[in-house]
Amino acid sequence: MTSDITNDEESSDRQSFRASCDQIREFASNALIAAGTQVEASRSVANALTETSMRGVDSHGIRLLLHYIKVVQGGRINPGPKLAFTQTGASTGIVDGDNGFGHHASYFAIDRAVAIAEKSGIGAVSVINSSHFGAAGSYVLRAANKGYVGLGFCNSDAFVLAHDGIHSFHGTNPIAFAAPVPGKEPYLLDMATSVVPWNRVQDYLMEGLPLPPDVTVDSSGEPTIDAAQSAALLPLGGMLYGHKGAGLASMIEVLCAIMTGSPYCSSLPAMKGPDFSTPRHMGHFFLAIDYRRFVSPQTYEAGMHAYLHDLRSQPSKPGRNVMAPGDREWLVLEERQRLGIPVMRQLRMELDHLADHLSIQRIHYDE
Amino acid sequence: MTSDITNDEESSDRQSFRASCDQIREFASNALIAAGTQVEASRSVANALTETSMRGVDSHGIRLLLHYIKVVQGGRINPGPKLAFTQTGASTGIVDGDNGFGHHASYFAIDRAVAIAEKSGIGAVSVINSSHFGAAGSYVLRAANKGYVGLGFCNSDAFVLAHDGIHSFHGTNPIAFAAPVPGKEPYLLDMATSVVPWNRVQDYLMEGLPLPPDVTVDSSGEPTIDAAQSAALLPLGGMLYGHKGAGLASMIEVLCAIMTGSPYCSSLPAMKGPDFSTPRHMGHFFLAIDYRRFVSPQTYEAGMHAYLHDLRSQPSKPGRNVMAPGDREWLVLEERQRLGIPVMRQLRMELDHLADHLSIQRIHYDE
Repeated sequence: MTSDITNDEESSDRQSFRASCDQIREFASNALIAAGTQVEASRSVANALTETSMRGVDSHGIRLLLHYIKVVQGGRINPGPKLAFTQTGASTGIVDGDNGFGHHASYFAIDRAVAIAEKSGIGAVSVINSSHFGAAGSYVLRAANKGYVGLGFCNSDAFVLAHDGIHSFHGTNPIAFAAPVPGKEPYLLDMATSVVPWNRVQDYLMEGLPLPPDVTVDSSGEPTIDAAQSAALLPLGGMLYGHKGAGLASMIEVLCAIMTGSPYCSSLPAMKGPDFSTPRHMGHFFLAIDYRRFVSPQTYEAGMHAYLHDLRSQPSKPGRNVMAPGDREWLVLEERQRLGIPVMRQLRMELDHLADHLSIQRIHYDE
Repeated sequence: MTSDITNDEESSDRQSFRASCDQIREFASNALIAAGTQVEASRSVANALTETSMRGVDSHGIRLLLHYIKVVQGGRINPGPKLAFTQTGASTGIVDGDNGFGHHASYFAIDRAVAIAEKSGIGAVSVINSSHFGAAGSYVLRAANKGYVGLGFCNSDAFVLAHDGIHSFHGTNPIAFAAPVPGKEPYLLDMATSVVPWNRVQDYLMEGLPLPPDVTVDSSGEPTIDAAQSAALLPLGGMLYGHKGAGLASMIEVLCAIMTGSPYCSSLPAMKGPDFSTPRHMGHFFLAIDYRRFVSPQTYEAGMHAYLHDLRSQPSKPGRNVMAPGDREWLVLEERQRLGIPVMRQLRMELDHLADHLSIQRIHYDE
């Protein structure tokens, strides 16, 4: 059991170059600064991208740097946002991201939510005027690393079939949840509410392989296993039970768009353009919970360890292990801390080209 | 798109007897009181069962009355619970259900959560020492009807295959979410995190029909379409993508069990016995959110109506309609308010038998 954005990256063994996490982080930060982004925002984005790559979630890791440089240079992203926090209740507040990078606004928001939770037990913070924030897991992990349970939600532009419909409507709308595991890396769930993410379909296309059944539909809404004919992802649950994935995606629209006054799925400008100059005004929603208001730390710790032990000890299919949410990520993290982050040949070429274009130092690879 | 506990009831057309909602509510309340339950708790349970039946969620409606009479008479349920609320922070609190009915404790808890949210913007209330609470939707609807966004979670005993495992581990762990829709019935999502609920499998068994693929496994963890051979439900996402449904179920264990110090899935005494005398000490978790802390009421109302209109207007497959969460429930509600709640012949016989056993008046059916 793990987030699908992680599963998505099982193919990372194709990579032949590795660079240290520090190299990647510094390069990303330097590139964003060279493209005009303010230092603090650049560091937030670089941090999110690098840590996401370290957890093995390559779809939302360093490879997104090229996209982010494009959108900050295109004008969609405000390179020098002034983040503003308005507390609207003892336990609620709104972060205005000033149309800067979503990562920057989201770290800021979850930190506010944790500070509120410290005082009142739970903090709920929305983000408005934001943009793509990378992996939702980044922000709930921040909460968990500070000792709080975190929940994070974001919508996206339309990729996923409306259940019983024939066209895409909702986004891949992720839900992320993290909780402290005393003495260990946090518990971490980070999942899109579609069956798979769009770039998984692209992987099948590149490799010329048929998709598994019940993953996508073609442009007339009929199921297809042909990646080239795929026009929309199916919501989690597929053709028969997709009302559940669609229901979760819809809940996330209510939390992130309707409840924040931000654009919902089908009215969001597409992440992939062609317009890279207009701000997207995206909304997010974060919760931080102080579990100590509900249970003694001793009982929590004992319960969490017993539950995770029982789950991981379940008899498994041959060649598989029953895993807890986050287990796969922390295995990959340990490996990548030792060996560095893998970068595909094509991505390396593009990052080298970016370095030259921005007149910054190229990434140094371990060769 | 709708909750699966609702879909589960499409077969309710088999029913040939109808009784008014008031009849059902009064009968349930009288039966619980006659079985020794205190008046207020009886009314809570009767209300939850009746409203759940009215929404078409028959699996969690009046047919559960027989079970609840059995467990209150067996001693599992405290017939005269003293509910206690301890506020543990400006925005958090714990309800001790005193091992009475879960419905009673859960209405009490969501009312506390709403009262807190009224003051501080969000309220988080856990329930401990509770039991089966029926449909999770009942409590978030209470929040929405008071003008607040509600979220509710509950775990259950082990019914669902551990992803990559061969035996059941997690419960069907529902998530429920409701939000006000000004001028209309609330937005309502109420779904188990398994592909289908267990009683759907029982329906296929009774009708001698093969199951759809990717819904259950047999006792060795192999997929089966034979209801009689089914030993565990698959988590939402099925064999390939069940890490997502399992991840959601697991998140709900953390919120309801680990974070409340209550038993988790595999350590919960089975709802269906054989032990009906030992309290189950179940935990639940509820949130109420004041959306006005994040958006103006005007913007919220306009956004909600625009979003729901767009969703419902999506081009659909022949013979289907794209629906919003709750649409199906409110259609059924309207019908059942007019025509009454359908009761199957077998259930009618059992309820009549119960009436005689408890020396209370039988339900009057419209014939």
